[in-house]
Amino acid sequence: MKVLVIGAAGMVGRKLVAELLATGRVGEQTITSLALADVVIPVAPETSIPVASLAVDLSVPEVAAQLVADRPDLIFHLAAIVSGEAEADFEKGYSINLDGTRHLLEACRLAGRASSYCPRLVFTSSIAVFGEPLPAVIGDTHEHTPLTSYGTQKAICELLLADYSRRGFVDGIGIRLPTIAVRPGGPNKAASGFFSGIIREPLAGQEALLPVADAVRHWFASPRAAVGFLLHAAALDTGQLGNQRNLTMPGLAATVGEQIAALERVAGPKAVALIRRHPDETIAGIVAGWPQAFEATLAKSLGFVGESSFDEIIRIYIEDELGGQIS
Amino acid sequence: MKVLVIGAAGMVGRKLVAELLATGRVGEQTITSLALADVVIPVAPETSIPVASLAVDLSVPEVAAQLVADRPDLIFHLAAIVSGEAEADFEKGYSINLDGTRHLLEACRLAGRASSYCPRLVFTSSIAVFGEPLPAVIGDTHEHTPLTSYGTQKAICELLLADYSRRGFVDGIGIRLPTIAVRPGGPNKAASGFFSGIIREPLAGQEALLPVADAVRHWFASPRAAVGFLLHAAALDTGQLGNQRNLTMPGLAATVGEQIAALERVAGPKAVALIRRHPDETIAGIVAGWPQAFEATLAKSLGFVGESSFDEIIRIYIEDELGGQIS
Repeated sequence: MKVLVIGAAGMVGRKLVAELLATGRVGEQTITSLALADVVIPVAPETSIPVASLAVDLSVPEVAAQLVADRPDLIFHLAAIVSGEAEADFEKGYSINLDGTRHLLEACRLAGRASSYCPRLVFTSSIAVFGEPLPAVIGDTHEHTPLTSYGTQKAICELLLADYSRRGFVDGIGIRLPTIAVRPGGPNKAASGFFSGIIREPLAGQEALLPVADAVRHWFASPRAAVGFLLHAAALDTGQLGNQRNLTMPGLAATVGEQIAALERVAGPKAVALIRRHPDETIAGIVAGWPQAFEATLAKSLGFVGESSFDEIIRIYIEDELGGQIS
Repeated sequence: MKVLVIGAAGMVGRKLVAELLATGRVGEQTITSLALADVVIPVAPETSIPVASLAVDLSVPEVAAQLVADRPDLIFHLAAIVSGEAEADFEKGYSINLDGTRHLLEACRLAGRASSYCPRLVFTSSIAVFGEPLPAVIGDTHEHTPLTSYGTQKAICELLLADYSRRGFVDGIGIRLPTIAVRPGGPNKAASGFFSGIIREPLAGQEALLPVADAVRHWFASPRAAVGFLLHAAALDTGQLGNQRNLTMPGLAATVGEQIAALERVAGPKAVALIRRHPDETIAGIVAGWPQAFEATLAKSLGFVGESSFDEIIRIYIEDELGGQIS
């Protein structure tokens, strides 16, 4: 099968590509070619599978048609500008996160006019589609009232994905990713950055700032689980989905206090001592509006699997990013 | 205040315009001018209020800017192509129902760049935003999984309306209208047409076909109630809405059997005898996927009022369309 990954240079994109090339397959099917697209040229590991890398701007209408000209059987669409940037630049957010996705859907629909075409399209949505009012545990049929333009754009793309699937233009599945932790790399300015930072920095022997209270509860999956969700979605029998083309992925609900206790179990009190409480009302205010936990009943029943403890999430980080060793 | 009505030539639009001109006010505010737009030139009653009538195509990007150039304080946006047409013509549906609304929102946002501008925007959405799986009574926080492109387009516009309101570009409120009955005019080809036809035709001494079982239950409001919802939304303190900019309007849940019983009470057995049962599996199948009843708790708490019996809905039809008399 021919596979296209849009957003291949991002953190999850790179891990997905590495996994696709390592196994050479998706479900029962062998990958015959892989096309990678992003705003910067994605770099792929050496492999026997033919790989094409492209730097593209999906907000330019013609680009999507070029991407699907080769008629990929499977498309992963991970490309988006992040929440903070979509909030700061209203037009850019709508242009890339909404119009870019719509161009892709339209390119698939129009390609199907020439001759039959209906690719599997795996789209990464987000729990940012949920907003106030929120129950403590959010069910699979809860409404979407996003509190950000990013969440609005993701919610709209979910609706488009479902309608284009219902009409037979794509065979779509949208997966709402939990907050990904532990993210590799350095500290960033995302409001959610500390959820990874309070684990990652202490494991590297560095101090980490904690801007919120220990009681703050949130919803997590590891980067490895995220790649697993994408691959499972790619091979799933979508006939099981009915009209529910968009699914909340299973995650782990954990408080900051539970994160810290897990860090102590995995890396000892020396690591925990590097976490410095530094309350930040702005960040605390933003995080207070975020979802805390989900039922994710449907996704679990379809075989999507997340982590069952924050210890596991930390161990995955140590295995995948630190070569299995901590200092 | 300056008022703009887009979609002024439709059934609800005409009744809204008649009411605006009859009272000359919206809430506490006096109407100083009224602009009416539709794909055909809307006709307005004689009045002392200056009225401008325009034939426009909202799917043309520049049109929305022309409509808001006069900076109306209040915009009613009722324009849409109907469900059946949006399903038959995919591109036209998205072009008018989605892009048309987005052009209007963008025009308001861009007008606000020159100098402060944030009009009240009352948008008519639809219970078509709801789809499977559906509980028997749908709560205010139930998800939107529309089963039609029309429902998808309305659900997307709701999300845009909420985000543009959150950003301060418009002061939006979306109202999900129940199925409007009793519609004046002749029989039409809408799958929902019989809900009005089995009342309207017998009241005119004509036979009406009933394609579904008496047990079929649906959600109704009169045209008079719909106009009431629009006017109430126009004058509402939107500070009460929080992040819930889109509301399911209160309606009346009634089975076809209850409709017929109401007709008998209002117009006697002679009228009921004109209903001929003529099962149509296609229509029965479509209607089976439709919502049956809603809680509408939030809208009721905000003062929106629907009907409390189908007898009342029939009497409103007789008063407003038949001059208060039946043959």
